Amino acid sequence: MIDKILLNGKDISSDIKKDLQGKISNLYKNNIIPCLATILVGNDASSETYVRMKGKACEKIGIKSKKIHLPENITTRDLTDLIGKLNNDSNVHGILLQHPVPSHIDERITFDTINIEKDVDGVTSWGYGRTALNLDAYPSCTPAGIMKILDTYNIKVEGKHAAVVGRSPILGKPVSNLLLNKNATVTICHSYTENIDKILKQADIIIAAVGKPKFIKGEWLKTGAIVIDAGYNKGNVGDVDFESCDGIVKAITPVPGGVGPVTIAMLLKHTVEAAEKQSLNLFNR
Amino acid sequence: MIDKILLNGKDISSDIKKDLQGKISNLYKNNIIPCLATILVGNDASSETYVRMKGKACEKIGIKSKKIHLPENITTRDLTDLIGKLNNDSNVHGILLQHPVPSHIDERITFDTINIEKDVDGVTSWGYGRTALNLDAYPSCTPAGIMKILDTYNIKVEGKHAAVVGRSPILGKPVSNLLLNKNATVTICHSYTENIDKILKQADIIIAAVGKPKFIKGEWLKTGAIVIDAGYNKGNVGDVDFESCDGIVKAITPVPGGVGPVTIAMLLKHTVEAAEKQSLNLFNR
Repeated sequence: MIDKILLNGKDISSDIKKDLQGKISNLYKNNIIPCLATILVGNDASSETYVRMKGKACEKIGIKSKKIHLPENITTRDLTDLIGKLNNDSNVHGILLQHPVPSHIDERITFDTINIEKDVDGVTSWGYGRTALNLDAYPSCTPAGIMKILDTYNIKVEGKHAAVVGRSPILGKPVSNLLLNKNATVTICHSYTENIDKILKQADIIIAAVGKPKFIKGEWLKTGAIVIDAGYNKGNVGDVDFESCDGIVKAITPVPGGVGPVTIAMLLKHTVEAAEKQSLNLFNR
Repeated sequence: MIDKILLNGKDISSDIKKDLQGKISNLYKNNIIPCLATILVGNDASSETYVRMKGKACEKIGIKSKKIHLPENITTRDLTDLIGKLNNDSNVHGILLQHPVPSHIDERITFDTINIEKDVDGVTSWGYGRTALNLDAYPSCTPAGIMKILDTYNIKVEGKHAAVVGRSPILGKPVSNLLLNKNATVTICHSYTENIDKILKQADIIIAAVGKPKFIKGEWLKTGAIVIDAGYNKGNVGDVDFESCDGIVKAITPVPGGVGPVTIAMLLKHTVEAAEKQSLNLFNR
């Protein structure tokens, strides 16, 4: 029986933050305080929690967190106007609009108003296209975190068959692109996929991004598979039935403590990079 | 033994062009002549042929073809300046920059200079992102043509397993997105893919977009598979070993006369749609 290795997202997150300390110190020396603006619309409890967590993570390592909390009834126009102002504010280096916004707002238009240089959360359609085409842009943070986990543990992606379960615009679709750009053969599965167990049985790497608690069973997987569980469902459970993977998978991310912490660390990393790039542009002017 | 059905791209192309006639007449009645600007840089013989074919196809149905032929040594800057002028020219509705441009030019920058409303050839990274995210944009013409063939022949895509062989930015990658958005389970294969025969054996729909003559063999395919061959190699051969598919595949596009004619028809269709949309904006002003 194979002992499954736990892919420790907390440790990776700590290491990323440590690496950022030096960069942040350098920015401070040049009188630049890296700053992430977070926009929260309305009073959804979990969204409030997420935004607060991100703000705290910023402040803990010296990134300024500019929190904007808007009323539920704000219009698309007023929201895009606000984003436009943040785009033009040279003290703001990254902009995060917490998903989801209330249904009367056109979320796509508001996302796409964010300047690509400040799109540290990877939500614009232009940034999506650039990432997919292997051009410079900030990918969504969870896909970026997943790639960071694979890389940190030296898990070979090139030539491997990766199955992504889920196709959301900020997770399943972009992580497929990142895996493909690292030369994996990629299969994208979703609610219309037939015989998903047979497809997963062939995959060397499984990315669970479906948002259904314990949906993926160990018996569907190949012996020795690598499992990245990006699900985070009520009751602190992932999309993978963790226990049922015993003796089958080679390595797996725990939930919590796997993908989650690395996702936040990638947001911090992107914000610091954005501050560096934007300050560089400033000096060159 | 199953007789393979030939998916007739010429007929589909004729039908698309017939449908466009009424739309073009309406545009003329409003004093709008739909116009596609084609830009050819240098003297590559096959590029010259492609541009000439596209120009002729335009003129034949009443789309004005504005041909711009630039010297090999033009700079990226001069080319983007020219595209900028075409973006601002209200008599030009579509812009096609023939790929490839000479290697000293940054093709990505020049592509991305094209206004998304005039990007009828689907080459911008923003248009790519929007298409992948199932938002309004003109997809690349070959992927659009492939979807049109599947649709015309009522080939069910939803829930089917589609394998795309090739991952170029204007063919393999975008056709994967379009198939995924039509609810296929999609596997993307490429030069690093191991055991490609075993993967293709499971696919209901095969899209050959690899650019290697007769690369895909009939014996690799599932009985009853649908094959779309988007390859066009020297000697008028596709990426699929056509003869070896006898008795195995249910339907296949011939080369030539399959994907090629539909690709050009989609370019015409996008140009007419662009003229309609842009004239509408004009009237609304």
